This record gives sequence, structure tokens and C-alpha cells, in this order.
Amino acid sequence: MRIMLIDENMERALTLKQALCEAGNEVVFESSSALDMIKRVAETQPDMIIIDTESPSRDTLEHLAAVHRDQPRPIVMFTHDGESDKIKAALHAGVSSYIVNGLDPSRIKPILDVAISRFEAYQAMRLQLDKANTTLAERKIIERAKGILMKQRNFNEEDAFQAMRKTSMERSLKMSELAQQIIAISELLT
Amino acid sequence: MRIMLIDENMERALTLKQALCEAGNEVVFESSSALDMIKRVAETQPDMIIIDTESPSRDTLEHLAAVHRDQPRPIVMFTHDGESDKIKAALHAGVSSYIVNGLDPSRIKPILDVAISRFEAYQAMRLQLDKANTTLAERKIIERAKGILMKQRNFNEEDAFQAMRKTSMERSLKMSELAQQIIAISELLT
Repeated sequence: MRIMLIDENMERALTLKQALCEAGNEVVFESSSALDMIKRVAETQPDMIIIDTESPSRDTLEHLAAVHRDQPRPIVMFTHDGESDKIKAALHAGVSSYIVNGLDPSRIKPILDVAISRFEAYQAMRLQLDKANTTLAERKIIERAKGILMKQRNFNEEDAFQAMRKTSMERSLKMSELAQQIIAISELLT
Repeated sequence: MRIMLIDENMERALTLKQALCEAGNEVVFESSSALDMIKRVAETQPDMIIIDTESPSRDTLEHLAAVHRDQPRPIVMFTHDGESDKIKAALHAGVSSYIVNGLDPSRIKPILDVAISRFEAYQAMRLQLDKANTTLAERKIIERAKGILMKQRNFNEEDAFQAMRKTSMERSLKMSELAQQIIAISELLT
């Protein structure tokens, strides 16, 4: 795997890097600060981000949250800060594995594997949620447009649906796109 | 916190129990096997489950999955099995924190805190997803019932909605319950 490594401590960075390479990974970007990580992630497209920090600063967590939102990938954080609020903030910012006082080179492989599996499970659930919300929004619009057709043309529900389906196929539009047009144009016409 | 502890190894169980108690927790149930954990969780209502096992068996994971489905709570698993498929299976069964070769009494508190935070974040997302799916199913039914009213009584969409709203309030029914009745009865009548 291609890894981005952010480590405040040069000595620990060296140990970590060695363990990562021995486990068959490649460190494609290395820095002592998370300052420009959003840009660097876009440039280097790492498979995973590893951060080793005494305690994650608010800035670091904000950068992570931005990466998590726009360029999601597994994030492992090694730290000495076991404070409850910090843990919550880190998980909220998208950290897949938050490990307190557990940077042990011999454990690196299962730690990365757990982070990847957890990240994938999270992404799958996120996708389901986004899909459900999109479907919900689209359905609202389609039902509204269908109602307009039923009223205007005295169609029953099935007829209205079929008419919309036919038009959407003829015009290569998604049903929700057509519905949006029906709503806008009917407001204009009536 | 009130903890259920499943540990195959009596010596490790003792160490774990001591660390848990020193961190201010109470072990409310202890066993060397996950065999009857579903029943025991129902009886003892622990805040959290900790499992220490050489490698989680298929049976153990099935029991965990059942607990996760019906009586969800944070689950921490300490193990020596870092195999990728096992990690995936454990996370899928609802394990909040899967820790390979990392049973170190001094790290117990942050490990439990991370597991709890992760569990809460997961439950919140699960709830959102369930809610979105329920809303979607209810909306389908409500729109169908609305369509029936629009057609039968030549209502426009707004009138149909208001008529349903009024009836649902008068009869103390949820809109989706009323909608279900409208659909069933209109099939009977027409």
C-alpha cells in the first residue's frame, strides 16, 4: 500500500517507516506536520494516511475532516492522548483507528488491516445512507410532478407514471430531472 | 461501567479483570466461553462486552452478531488472530474494537473509550439509515393513498393531503397507518 505518513517525531517516524516498508508498504509522502495534507493527498493519492502525534491539534483534526469529506481513505492515528473528548473528536473527523500508546512495529500489519476493514464498512454504510436520502428527495419531486399530471390531465396514478416514464426515456432524462422540469414549467403555465 | 468478560484463558482473565476494576469498572458476568452469551447479556444487561480469545471461532462470531442485532452494545475483542478475513468477519459481527496482540492492562481505559465512542457513532448512523428507509417506505404508501383520493374525489394534491391529515388526526392514526387503510379499503370498494 501507498502510505502518507505524518509524524511530529523524527525518531518515531523512522521506526514507523521501517516497519511499514518491512510489511510491504511504500511511504509516498512524509511530513512532520498535517498543515498542507489536503493538497498533498490530492497530489499523491495515498491508499492510507498514518498520523503519529503526541496529541492531535484542532488544526490537524480539521484537516483530517476535510480529507475525510472530500477524499476519504483509511486514517490511522497513533497518539498519547487518551482523553475522551479527543477520542470523540478524532473519530468524528474520520479517524478509522485511534490508538493510544500502542505504536508497536510488530503490530503494524493487523492495525492497518483493521483500519482498512473498518473504513470500508463505514463507507458502505455512508453510501447506503446517501442513497436512501437521495432516493427520498427524488421521490418527493417525482410524486409532486405525478400529482400535477394527474390533476391537469385527469390521469390516474399509473397513467401519470407511464407518461412520465415514456417522456423521460424519449428525452434521456432521469425521472427526477423530468419531474423537476414538470414542476417548474407547470408553475410557469398555470 | 458494568462489563461482561469472556476469556478462554484464566490467567489473562485475572489480569484483565484487575485492570478493569482498577479503572473503576465492575465485571458483572465472567465466563470462559461465549456459548450462552445472548441469554446472559439479556439477564445482566452489561454496558459493554470484552472478549479475549486466541482466535474468534465461527460460533463466537455468530453469538456476537446476534447480540449486536438484538441487544447492541460496545464489544471489544482482544485476540492473536490478525488474519484479514477474521478481522472483516469480526467487524461485520459488530465488534467495535478488534485488537491484535494488544492486551496491555495500562492501555485498557483508552481502548474502552475508543470502543464506546465508535459504537455510539455507529449506532447514530444506523439510526439515521433505519429512519431514512422507514420514511421512504412510509412515503411510498402515503403517496399511493393520496393518488387514490385525488382520482376518486377529484382532489388536487394539497386537498388530498389535507383530507388525509384531518382524518389521521381525528382517528389518532399515523399518516402511514391511515394510508395503509385507504389502500386496503379502496381495493375492497372498487
